[in-house]
Amino acid sequence: MTTNVEPLKIGAVLFPGFELLDIYGPVELLGMVGAHVPISITMLAEKSGEVPSSQGPRGVADASLAEVSGLDILLVPGGIGTRKGLRNSHFLDLLRSRAQEARFVASICTGSALLAKAGLLEGKRATSNKLVFDWVSTLGTNVTWVREARWVEDGNVFTASGVSAGMDMTLGLIQRLYGREMSLEVARWAEYTWHEDSTLDPFAFPAPLKGEEG
Amino acid sequence: MTTNVEPLKIGAVLFPGFELLDIYGPVELLGMVGAHVPISITMLAEKSGEVPSSQGPRGVADASLAEVSGLDILLVPGGIGTRKGLRNSHFLDLLRSRAQEARFVASICTGSALLAKAGLLEGKRATSNKLVFDWVSTLGTNVTWVREARWVEDGNVFTASGVSAGMDMTLGLIQRLYGREMSLEVARWAEYTWHEDSTLDPFAFPAPLKGEEG
Repeated sequence: MTTNVEPLKIGAVLFPGFELLDIYGPVELLGMVGAHVPISITMLAEKSGEVPSSQGPRGVADASLAEVSGLDILLVPGGIGTRKGLRNSHFLDLLRSRAQEARFVASICTGSALLAKAGLLEGKRATSNKLVFDWVSTLGTNVTWVREARWVEDGNVFTASGVSAGMDMTLGLIQRLYGREMSLEVARWAEYTWHEDSTLDPFAFPAPLKGEEG
Repeated sequence: MTTNVEPLKIGAVLFPGFELLDIYGPVELLGMVGAHVPISITMLAEKSGEVPSSQGPRGVADASLAEVSGLDILLVPGGIGTRKGLRNSHFLDLLRSRAQEARFVASICTGSALLAKAGLLEGKRATSNKLVFDWVSTLGTNVTWVREARWVEDGNVFTASGVSAGMDMTLGLIQRLYGREMSLEVARWAEYTWHEDSTLDPFAFPAPLKGEEG
């Protein structure tokens, strides 16, 4: 490995009512890549400071989405706060700006609803949480919503199914960037059994539940 | 379900250098139980306020470990900060006090090293992260360290293997409290494939790595 390599710049988005595992699962796994290549992780939100999750516990945004640029990876979680986020045009504008200049955009769960609403999935294939799939798949223009997928890759846009699917997608993204051996090593460090086939989705056809999303 | 039920009081510990997924994975899953029974989640640390993780991103402790009592579940993560925690007798004293009065104590990864050092595993079976198992299993007095286990239950003490094993253990704990159907439902909501057999451990015998723990 050469020295003075630019770090892999990861921006992970928080918003009020974000789903804890959606964002911290992927950040955990990407963090492990740091054992091999320089990385930087910045937690981002509409403004910097504490942000309450769906579950209550607060995360901290290091910076505003307006303050960063040139991310390699923009991670967008879902959570109960997604619906409010869909109505926040300032937040969506910031998300769109950061996404359009990012090398990769990756959403987890109903994070793909935010991407769709921000116009970032036009002409793309994408997936989302399966308990609220019927709702999310009404969003966006010219999006090919894929129900049966653990995650979907379309060009530089990755979208994962519900909550823990974000970790499988993240290993897919690590594979794209650094190869399969790196993903297998990270999975081993995290003692995580990678659902490596993105097309296999044991949760594709659940009985829908009212008020459940993540 | 009856009304006016006391909430299930969950205390989740943070310390500088905690592993993100160790704690937020279990908190995510326990949070979902809240759809069926009242729960309260309090993030705890030596003192309240922001706490940096192993990966960098900060969590927020709602209260000091000295300020709470009568927890139903005390969750203790691992992470790179474990070694410093082992030398912090004030932190270990607080941990011991909260654990001794808790209904259940559950550690993830090298969190079991902290429990061992605090004397909370005496006479118990326990497990830990497999990459640093040889080190952790030197800690504590009269602890039966079990290498091959996704997680170990001994009375009211649950210990998980590395990082993502904490989610499997948490589903085991939810099963103990509310039955298997609840665990299966929570797993489905999180789109998580539960490693339901605690004795099956695909990571029990890895090649050891220097400086890797979680």
